[in-house]
Amino acid sequence: MRKIKIVKNYLKHAEGSCMFSMGETKVLCVASVEEKVPPYVEQKGDTHGWVTAEYAMLPRSCNQRSSRKRLSEGGRAQEISRLIGRALRASVDLSKLGKRTITIDCDVIRADGGTRTASINGGFIALALALKNLKEKKLLKSIPIRDFVGAVSVGIYDNGKKILDLSAKEDNNADLDMNIVMTASGKFIEVQGTAEGEPFSRKEMDELLDMAYKGIKRITSAQEKSLGALK
Amino acid sequence: MRKIKIVKNYLKHAEGSCMFSMGETKVLCVASVEEKVPPYVEQKGDTHGWVTAEYAMLPRSCNQRSSRKRLSEGGRAQEISRLIGRALRASVDLSKLGKRTITIDCDVIRADGGTRTASINGGFIALALALKNLKEKKLLKSIPIRDFVGAVSVGIYDNGKKILDLSAKEDNNADLDMNIVMTASGKFIEVQGTAEGEPFSRKEMDELLDMAYKGIKRITSAQEKSLGALK
Amino acid sequence: MRKIKIVKNYLKHAEGSCMFSMGETKVLCVASVEEKVPPYVEQKGDTHGWVTAEYAMLPRSCNQRSSRKRLSEGGRAQEISRLIGRALRASVDLSKLGKRTITIDCDVIRADGGTRTASINGGFIALALALKNLKEKKLLKSIPIRDFVGAVSVGIYDNGKKILDLSAKEDNNADLDMNIVMTASGKFIEVQGTAEGEPFSRKEMDELLDMAYKGIKRITSAQEKSLGALK
Amino acid sequence: MRKIKIVKNYLKHAEGSCMFSMGETKVLCVASVEEKVPPYVEQKGDTHGWVTAEYAMLPRSCNQRSSRKRLSEGGRAQEISRLIGRALRASVDLSKLGKRTITIDCDVIRADGGTRTASINGGFIALALALKNLKEKKLLKSIPIRDFVGAVSVGIYDNGKKILDLSAKEDNNADLDMNIVMTASGKFIEVQGTAEGEPFSRKEMDELLDMAYKGIKRITSAQEKSLGALK
Amino acid sequence: MRKIKIVKNYLKHAEGSCMFSMGETKVLCVASVEEKVPPYVEQKGDTHGWVTAEYAMLPRSCNQRSSRKRLSEGGRAQEISRLIGRALRASVDLSKLGKRTITIDCDVIRADGGTRTASINGGFIALALALKNLKEKKLLKSIPIRDFVGAVSVGIYDNGKKILDLSAKEDNNADLDMNIVMTASGKFIEVQGTAEGEPFSRKEMDELLDMAYKGIKRITSAQEKSLGALK
Amino acid sequence: MRKIKIVKNYLKHAEGSCMFSMGETKVLCVASVEEKVPPYVEQKGDTHGWVTAEYAMLPRSCNQRSSRKRLSEGGRAQEISRLIGRALRASVDLSKLGKRTITIDCDVIRADGGTRTASINGGFIALALALKNLKEKKLLKSIPIRDFVGAVSVGIYDNGKKILDLSAKEDNNADLDMNIVMTASGKFIEVQGTAEGEPFSRKEMDELLDMAYKGIKRITSAQEKSLGALK
Repeated sequence: MRKIKIVKNYLKHAEGSCMFSMGETKVLCVASVEEKVPPYVEQKGDTHGWVTAEYAMLPRSCNQRSSRKRLSEGGRAQEISRLIGRALRASVDLSKLGKRTITIDCDVIRADGGTRTASINGGFIALALALKNLKEKKLLKSIPIRDFVGAVSVGIYDNGKKILDLSAKEDNNADLDMNIVMTASGKFIEVQGTAEGEPFSRKEMDELLDMAYKGIKRITSAQEKSLGALK
Repeated sequence: MRKIKIVKNYLKHAEGSCMFSMGETKVLCVASVEEKVPPYVEQKGDTHGWVTAEYAMLPRSCNQRSSRKRLSEGGRAQEISRLIGRALRASVDLSKLGKRTITIDCDVIRADGGTRTASINGGFIALALALKNLKEKKLLKSIPIRDFVGAVSVGIYDNGKKILDLSAKEDNNADLDMNIVMTASGKFIEVQGTAEGEPFSRKEMDELLDMAYKGIKRITSAQEKSLGALK
Repeated sequence: MRKIKIVKNYLKHAEGSCMFSMGETKVLCVASVEEKVPPYVEQKGDTHGWVTAEYAMLPRSCNQRSSRKRLSEGGRAQEISRLIGRALRASVDLSKLGKRTITIDCDVIRADGGTRTASINGGFIALALALKNLKEKKLLKSIPIRDFVGAVSVGIYDNGKKILDLSAKEDNNADLDMNIVMTASGKFIEVQGTAEGEPFSRKEMDELLDMAYKGIKRITSAQEKSLGALK
Repeated sequence: MRKIKIVKNYLKHAEGSCMFSMGETKVLCVASVEEKVPPYVEQKGDTHGWVTAEYAMLPRSCNQRSSRKRLSEGGRAQEISRLIGRALRASVDLSKLGKRTITIDCDVIRADGGTRTASINGGFIALALALKNLKEKKLLKSIPIRDFVGAVSVGIYDNGKKILDLSAKEDNNADLDMNIVMTASGKFIEVQGTAEGEPFSRKEMDELLDMAYKGIKRITSAQEKSLGALK
Repeated sequence: MRKIKIVKNYLKHAEGSCMFSMGETKVLCVASVEEKVPPYVEQKGDTHGWVTAEYAMLPRSCNQRSSRKRLSEGGRAQEISRLIGRALRASVDLSKLGKRTITIDCDVIRADGGTRTASINGGFIALALALKNLKEKKLLKSIPIRDFVGAVSVGIYDNGKKILDLSAKEDNNADLDMNIVMTASGKFIEVQGTAEGEPFSRKEMDELLDMAYKGIKRITSAQEKSLGALK
Repeated sequence: MRKIKIVKNYLKHAEGSCMFSMGETKVLCVASVEEKVPPYVEQKGDTHGWVTAEYAMLPRSCNQRSSRKRLSEGGRAQEISRLIGRALRASVDLSKLGKRTITIDCDVIRADGGTRTASINGGFIALALALKNLKEKKLLKSIPIRDFVGAVSVGIYDNGKKILDLSAKEDNNADLDMNIVMTASGKFIEVQGTAEGEPFSRKEMDELLDMAYKGIKRITSAQEKSLGALK
C-alpha cells in the first residue's frame, strides 16, 4: 500500500478540511456546514441532518490535461460523488446531527489511481473535523460518528497477481478492479467490483476482501492518529 | 424470485430485441448494429468490436410520473448505462465481433424494482439475437458469446431478513441492496453492494452471494430456453 | 388506411393508458393525473383543469437508430407535443375538469409514419380512461368529454395520387403531407398541410379533406368500440 | 388588413435585407449567402442549393419584456423557423440555386400579432434581393424564383366574426387562428389552422381561405412593387 | 470620430428606447421598467432601485454571419453586458430610483467597431427617457441622473498612430484598444485598455485619455441635444 | 501589500506549475503544453504558438460555499480567463514559441481578494517553467519571454484612502477597484478600473498607477528570485 499523508485544516476558514495523499494521488477534502436540510430529510424529524459529497478533478490532475467540460460530463463524477456521499453518511448517526447539511467537496489535485477511495478517506477526516468544530461551538453535545471509515481498492493484475491500492498504471491494466469501503471494526459499507476482462471466481473475491480489510485497518489507524479520539 | 417473461423479437425491424419482464418490472431491450467502432477500439485491430448500452426510464414507469428532464439528470441513468455496458461486454469476445458497435437500448416501460438487473438480463437476449442475426447473414462465422450472463439483486430487509430479487417496495426499505452479475458457470462480472443503513458483515455477504447465484442460474436457464443454443 | 389495434390499460398502475398501433406504427400513450394546475389556469377559476402532452421517440423506433440527444433537440418533438396537447384539450370541457392537470405521454415504440396522428388517437383513449377512472373514484360527476377526436394524415404522392394514412415510405416521397384532427361529428380541430414540392390547388385540398374525414370516422368508431359510452 | 411597409436593403452589407412592417408588427429580415450546402443536399447533385430560416424575438418586442432564455426555449421559435424555411424553399427552384445555402434571419423588432407571416413576407423580399445580387455578380444565370409568395393570418373572433390579419389582441381572443401561405397565382404552400376553443366547420374554413387569398394578393402586389420584375 | 445619429423612441411601446448609430455601427437600445428589485438590492432600503443591461448581436450584424449559438457562448456577451450595466448604474442615483429595476437591452443591428461604447451611449438615452417617463407619470419626483455619461474607444494603430473611435477594421489591426466611460464633467467611470501586441507607455496612455475626453464631450453634447434638460 | 509565497513545481508531472499565495489568497497555477495550435494561429506561420488560460474557483474557496454550477455560470470566470490569457500572451514572443499551445489553469484554492491578479502572477511562473522545460528538452532554442509580467489591484476605499492589493473585505467596500498588469520595465499590458460608487478624477488615477507600479516591481522581483534568469 502506498504512503498515506494527511495535512489537517489545510483551509483554515472552512469548518473542516484536509489534503489527503495516498502515494502520488492527492485530494483536497473540505467540509462546509449549512444550517438547513433538503426536503426529504426535513420530514424525518427535527434532529435529522444530512451529509453529501461532490467529487471533481482539476484539468491537469492526470498526466494529460482534460477539458473542464469533459471532466464534468458523462456522469462519472456524479457516480463517484454519490459513492462518497453514501460512504460518509454511513459513518454518521444522521438522527443526531441536527437540522444541518454537511457538504464534503473532494477536488482531485493529482490523480494516480484510487481517487475515489482517497476522497472517502480524506472526506471522513474533513467531516470529523467539522463535527468536532460543531461540538466545540456547543452546537452538538457529542460527535455523532459511529466508527472510523476507510476505503481502498484491490485488484487482479498481470494474470492473477492480487494487489492492494492500485496506482493509475496498475488500474489501467487490471483484470479486476474492486473498491471496498469498511468500518474500522470490519463491517462493509460498500463493495464494488468489476471484471474488466475475465470474470473472477468466488475464491478470488474472498482473497481480495481479506487483503482489503488489512489495508483499511492501516487507513483507519492513520485517521485515528490524525484526529485523536472522537467523543 | 419474481416471474420471468421474455417476448423475443418485440420490434421486428431491429437486429435484436426483447420485452423482458421480472414481475411487474418491464424493460424493452433493443440491439442496434452499426458497422463502425469508437476511436479507442479502432486501434485494437481490425477484428475488434464494441458493445455499449443506454438505459432510460419512461416518465410514467414509476407510480408517480417524473419529468423527462429529471429522469435524465443527475447521472443515475448514465451510471446504470455504464453498468449494463460493462456486464454485456464481459459476455462477448470483443476481439471476434468484427469492426462493429452493438448498442443496447434499455427503456424501462414499468419500474417495480430491479430495472438495472432486468436490463442486463433482457439486454443479453437482444445482444445474442443480434449476433445470431449477423451469423445468419454470414457477417460472423460463429457467435462470439463466452457464456450466458444474468443479473439479480439481493438485499437485507426488515431487520435481517435476506431476500432475492427486490421489488420497489422492498428496495426502498432495504438495509442493504446488492446487485450481482454472474455467468451461468458461476463467475462474477460485477458486484455492487451498498449498506443503506447498518454496515453488513462478511457472513451476511457470503449468504447473499449464495442466494444470488441460485437466482442467476434460473435467469440464465430462461435465457437459454428462449434463445436456444448459441453456436 | 392501415389496421388499427388498441390495447387498453397497457400499464395498469397508470390512471389511463393504451398501446395504439396503426399498421407498423406503435405508440404507448399514458395519462397521469396531478391535483394541481399551472398558474395561468389557476386564475380561470376553481373548476378549471388542464390537459398537456409530451411526445418522444425511442432511439430505435425508426429503421436507423438515432441518438437520444438528437431526438430531443431541434424542436420537432416539442412542436408535435404542442399539437397533441391542443388536439386533446379541444376534446375536453376544461371548465369541468376540476383543479387538475392530465399529462399524456406519447412514447413512440415503432415509427412507420403517422406517429403524431397515432399519438392523438391513442392519447384520446388514455385521456378518456383517466377521466372514467376519476368518475369511478367519484372525483368527477360526469366525464367532461365533448366528442370523440381522431387524427389522420392525407397526402399527394407520386404525381397526383391522393392517399390516406401515409406510411414512412409514402411520407418521405409525398409532394404534400397534411395532418387533420377532427371530431366524430365532422368539425375541425386542427389542419396542417405543407407542400413539400409543388404548391397544391384548392380543389386538391377539398378532396383531401373529404378523404380525411372518412378515415377519422373509422378511427373514432374504433375508439368508441374500445371505450364504450363516455358518460 | 393592416398597412404594409417595406424598407429594402436595410442592412447594406448583407446580400439581401428588408425591414418589413405590417401595422405595428416589425421584422428585420436578412439573407446571408454561404457557398456550401448541408450533407443531405450535397447528394442531390451539383446545382442544388438550400434555403433555411431562423426566427427570433427581441426581449422587448412585446408589451412585456421576456427574458432571452425564455424566448429561445420551448421550441416555439424553432417551430416558426421551420415554417418560414419551408415556405421560402417552396418559392425557389432549389435545383437551379447552385451549391449554396441562403439563410434568412427574421428578428422581430416589434410584435403585434402575425410575426410569423410578416417574417415570410419580408423573408421573401430578402431572399429575392439576395438572388438578384447573385445574378448581378454573374453567379446565377437567372433568378430561380417560381412565384411570389405571401402569408397571412385569418381567424374567427368574438363569436363568429371572421377577420383577416389578426393583431396580438385579436389573436389572444380568437376562437380559431389560421396561417396561410400561398403563391401569387393562388396555390397553397402551407395551411395551419387551430381551434383554440370551439371546433370549426368546413363552411367556416372555406370562407376563411377565400379571405386569406384576397389578403395574400395584396401582399404579393406590394412585394412586386418593391422588388420589380424577377428575371 | 464617426457621425452620431440618435432616433429617440424607436419603439413607442417601451418605457424608453433609441436607435443609436456611430458611423456604420447601429444599436437598438430599449429600457424596460419592472416594479421589483433583486434580493441584494431589496435589503438596501425601500427607495433603492437597480439598473442592469443585456448586450447581444444579431446573427448578420457583422460582415460574416455568425450562428446565434456562437454569439451567445464564450462569455463575451455577458462581459460586455456587465460593463454596460456598471456604466449606466454609475450615471444614476440608485437610492432615489424607488424599488424598481430598469433593464437596458442593447441589440446590435450592425457592427462596425465600438458596439460596446455605442451601447452605453444609446443605453444612457433609453435609460434617461424611461426616467423622464416615470417622472411624467408622477412615479418619480425628480429624474435621479447625476450627470450625462458617454463612452468611446481609443487606440494605437499602425505603429504608433493614435486614433479615436475605432472602426472594426482599425480595431482588428490595433496594437492597443482602450474603452473609456466618463461623465460630461470629466470624471472616469470605467477604463479598460489592453495591449494586443506591444505594451504601451504611461505617456501614450496620457495622450489617449486626453483624446477620449474630447470625444466623450461630443457624445454627451449630442445626448443633451436629443434629450433636453434632465430635471 | 500582502506577503507573496511561491511554491514552484507543486505538481511534478505537469510541464510547469506553482502554488502562488498573496496573503490569504492562494491559486494553483498549472501549465500544460500541447503540440498543436487553434486554426486562427495555424495560418500565422509554422513557428507561431498560442497561450491561453482558464480560471476557476473551488466551491469552498470563499467564506461561504458556492455551488459549482453557480461558479461556472454568468460569464465572470470566462471574463477573468480571457484577461489572464491576454496578459500572459503579452509576456511571450508567440512567433518564437513553435506550433504549440500552452494552457495555464488557475484554480483558486482560497479567495481573499485579488484572485485574478494572483492568477496572472502565478500563471507567469507556471508558463516560464514550462518554457524552461521545453528549452531543456531542446524543443526551444531560447526562452521566448519578453519581460517579467506582474499584476496588482489598487483601489480607493473609505472616502478617498488609496490602497494597494485589496483583500476581499477591502474590495467589497471599495469605491474604485483597478487591476493593472505591467512589465517589470514599467509598460502597461492591461488597465481595468471601475468606479463602483463615485466616478474618479484623473489625478486619482495618476496616483493609483504610481502605486501599482511599486507593487508590481515587488512582484516581478519575487518571480525573478524564484525562477532565476530566463535565457
